[in-house]
Amino acid sequence: MTMEILKKRILRDGVAVGTEILKVDSFLNHQVDVTLFELIGAEFRTRFDDVADKVDKILTIEASGIAVAAFTARYFGSVPVVFAKKEQPSTMMDDYYFSEIMSFTKRKMSSIRVDKKFLKEGDRCLIIDDFLAHGQAALGISRIAQQAGAEILGAGMVIEKEFQSGGARLREKGIRVESLAIVEKIEDGVIYFKG
Amino acid sequence: MTMEILKKRILRDGVAVGTEILKVDSFLNHQVDVTLFELIGAEFRTRFDDVADKVDKILTIEASGIAVAAFTARYFGSVPVVFAKKEQPSTMMDDYYFSEIMSFTKRKMSSIRVDKKFLKEGDRCLIIDDFLAHGQAALGISRIAQQAGAEILGAGMVIEKEFQSGGARLREKGIRVESLAIVEKIEDGVIYFKG
Repeated sequence: MTMEILKKRILRDGVAVGTEILKVDSFLNHQVDVTLFELIGAEFRTRFDDVADKVDKILTIEASGIAVAAFTARYFGSVPVVFAKKEQPSTMMDDYYFSEIMSFTKRKMSSIRVDKKFLKEGDRCLIIDDFLAHGQAALGISRIAQQAGAEILGAGMVIEKEFQSGGARLREKGIRVESLAIVEKIEDGVIYFKG
Repeated sequence: MTMEILKKRILRDGVAVGTEILKVDSFLNHQVDVTLFELIGAEFRTRFDDVADKVDKILTIEASGIAVAAFTARYFGSVPVVFAKKEQPSTMMDDYYFSEIMSFTKRKMSSIRVDKKFLKEGDRCLIIDDFLAHGQAALGISRIAQQAGAEILGAGMVIEKEFQSGGARLREKGIRVESLAIVEKIEDGVIYFKG
């Protein structure tokens, strides 16, 4: 049901650019529709209900993953949300885990970091993010989890662009992926969902 | 009441560094305590209850303002949250408002941007952010609101570092500021609240 509301919203307000880019900044990653985010959080709970009791932490990456992850946490017993940071602020002086990731949109490498205090051996984590494209952010987070000895129970993505293969890459690593809307292709300004 | 819970949390988990820096990354801006954020959202509603019916939009700035703003929006009729972006992604091709701001922590200028689609003339806005230090982020957002012809009803800040004068600067501009915890000074690793 949430999936249908989300897909309708993507078709109504999303803007397809070329064959690669889907802009959903009117409700997902620049302007945020809080009501939709609550539905999304509830839907992730439904998808991951079988492991819900095990979730110790929700991991995401700044910036646009934060609100989705925070609303999702409400449906998992309000567990802590940890968001990976994209650069090293001067106040982050302690030890941290880090991972290099490639941003295809920005055509550059960058690093993401998580303070070691906030991810421990044995922590069972859900990754939650707004977009799954090439999978770089989620793979970066999963490498950080690996460094910490934490376990990834799964990855919940609001929109997966299947043609950019991030989902396939995550599944190859043995990560369970639940995407609420899967875009098969973008062609001539038209968005095609899977199925 | 929320203010007391928040202050206790700052004293328990906050780390004072030198005389300028207060690290609260265990619950506010790296790891997020969702339950506390709900209390914070409710408290902002209490503080701004007299203008609550007028709020069209909540404005904040990525990254750590996003979750606070999103949880606050729930208490203001789930109005849209717009977060200013710190750099220009390749998917942001349309016109935008922008403002230059100085980051004292990072010792550099940067720019923040808001797509013109998401801020209109006459929009009545609340600014919500995690920290009010030198006030650069909030002043930048208020300049963007001014460019758009939008109105700022007030600024709600989780923690204000009074000694860095951001609050004074905002009030000089005629902006009403409501800070949930006001730090008067940091000395020898001790945090002193106002009052």
